[in-house]
Amino acid sequence: MFRPEIKVIDCTVRDGGLMNKWQFDDDFVREVYHALTEAGVDYMEIGYLSSEKSFSRDEVGPWKFCAEADLQRIIGKSEKKIKFSAMADIGRIDYDDILPKAESSLDMIRVACYAHQVDAAIDLAHHCMDKGYETTINLMAVSTVGIRELDEALSDLAKSRVPVIYLVDSFGGFYQEDIETLAKKYMEALPGKTIGIHAHNNQQLAFANTITSIIAGINYLDATLYGIGRGAGNCPIELLLSFLKNPKFKVRPLIQVIEKQILPWRKKIDWGYFIPYMVTGVLNQHPRSAMAIMESDKQDEITAFYDAAVNATELG
Amino acid sequence: MFRPEIKVIDCTVRDGGLMNKWQFDDDFVREVYHALTEAGVDYMEIGYLSSEKSFSRDEVGPWKFCAEADLQRIIGKSEKKIKFSAMADIGRIDYDDILPKAESSLDMIRVACYAHQVDAAIDLAHHCMDKGYETTINLMAVSTVGIRELDEALSDLAKSRVPVIYLVDSFGGFYQEDIETLAKKYMEALPGKTIGIHAHNNQQLAFANTITSIIAGINYLDATLYGIGRGAGNCPIELLLSFLKNPKFKVRPLIQVIEKQILPWRKKIDWGYFIPYMVTGVLNQHPRSAMAIMESDKQDEITAFYDAAVNATELG
Repeated sequence: MFRPEIKVIDCTVRDGGLMNKWQFDDDFVREVYHALTEAGVDYMEIGYLSSEKSFSRDEVGPWKFCAEADLQRIIGKSEKKIKFSAMADIGRIDYDDILPKAESSLDMIRVACYAHQVDAAIDLAHHCMDKGYETTINLMAVSTVGIRELDEALSDLAKSRVPVIYLVDSFGGFYQEDIETLAKKYMEALPGKTIGIHAHNNQQLAFANTITSIIAGINYLDATLYGIGRGAGNCPIELLLSFLKNPKFKVRPLIQVIEKQILPWRKKIDWGYFIPYMVTGVLNQHPRSAMAIMESDKQDEITAFYDAAVNATELG
Repeated sequence: MFRPEIKVIDCTVRDGGLMNKWQFDDDFVREVYHALTEAGVDYMEIGYLSSEKSFSRDEVGPWKFCAEADLQRIIGKSEKKIKFSAMADIGRIDYDDILPKAESSLDMIRVACYAHQVDAAIDLAHHCMDKGYETTINLMAVSTVGIRELDEALSDLAKSRVPVIYLVDSFGGFYQEDIETLAKKYMEALPGKTIGIHAHNNQQLAFANTITSIIAGINYLDATLYGIGRGAGNCPIELLLSFLKNPKFKVRPLIQVIEKQILPWRKKIDWGYFIPYMVTGVLNQHPRSAMAIMESDKQDEITAFYDAAVNATELG
């Protein structure tokens, strides 16, 4: 599927860091940076943009902040050919903390928000645009948003200057038909804007839903190395680039960095297809209960987990 | 997706056994049998039908043969409500070894064959039908069969009395669009017949491709508990039943038996998404090289594996 408008955004460090509080050392981040560059990936989302007042560096590492000095340490003497992205959560960043683009190695700032925060997200995104950055708004957890509220959020986004809006399957609960329906809705409601997809893999559908998105006309595609990411993880970038068959993409550097840097983490933390994540995906629930059991010594007690999750849904 | 014609065939013991030479003890098989029954699954494929002359019981266990005494040991005093299926490979079974249906607990015999074996497969399938069994033909590895050869095989199958023909993605190399194209082709070439799907998970698409098959009108759906099966494994049955939403299906018994019987095997053998399986899937190769490296102490040397696999494809 060759389409020049398609951009691939690797979220390995940002979304993968949700699983280990960004305890990636500089070698990890540097090798991911070089591998993604060599593979022809368009963007590397290297972390979050947060105020140093909101979190402690000791606890969450440098990639919760993406300070310019941290970025420079990774770039080193290399010629930076890949674009850097960082994600900003509403309420965790002061506007004044965002450097003018001329003083930053970041190229894009993605604003993540829930439907009820859309106005605040547009305000922050406009601020980023005015400072010179590419900008997206990533509307999270739409699987739990009512139709009227979603229509209102999309209508507000349509009136904004933000050029890229993301369809986000936060809970990994969508089937391909849901993606088709929502992609159509987003494109109709947001004329002239580019749509992105960020999928989670609770039902082993992150890659399939990304393919469905591409066919539906979505052009910004999120993925991570070996699918690393919160809970069940994301669309594996090695699968996505193999599918895209654009000659600018190379798969081998991805395999190499998976061998060197990702497989060692795979032995330490469990992302991917596990029954607790599958259950919250099927039930359209936030994965927090699944992450809690996966981090406990009860991760194999899946029937008790299933019963509790079903009860939680039935009790509403 | 509720459609009364849909039948789910669990292949846990048969396809899963390819990973451990059917070293499942009777408790395993019995608990799977009861769980599938309780879950409302239509068929349990309990193993292969082979001649005792072709293999040694010590090496491959009872489920390579599915002798009536083996089946009776599993059924015990229970009222058998699920149908039993066994797979027969061309050339590994003598016609005389197949009992008349009246003397057997098997309900269905599925004949697996390659395109060049279609005539022999039809002959064996007709023999099984004449003995009183439900019968399917599972045409394997179609991703490597030329168009003319495939058309010829489908034309022969159309003329046969065999009522169910399977589309089999042996190498896990198909994308949803391939499934759509082939499902359409099979249905046009095989008027009046039912089509089945057997998917492999090399690219994390087994479940997605099964959904695509359902939407395309395919009605016989293969799946296994937690996706256990050769190499990357199959479509996970707990995902499939959650999707189908037919009130006759229950997911909880599947979760229970996964906890009790499948998770312990998960710690001993590696099926699922691993880079070597992904590589053979993307390259449309038989997974044997990937299985060899996964069983060796080099399973993390994925870059060397990738290079060798790409070379093998390029050298043709």
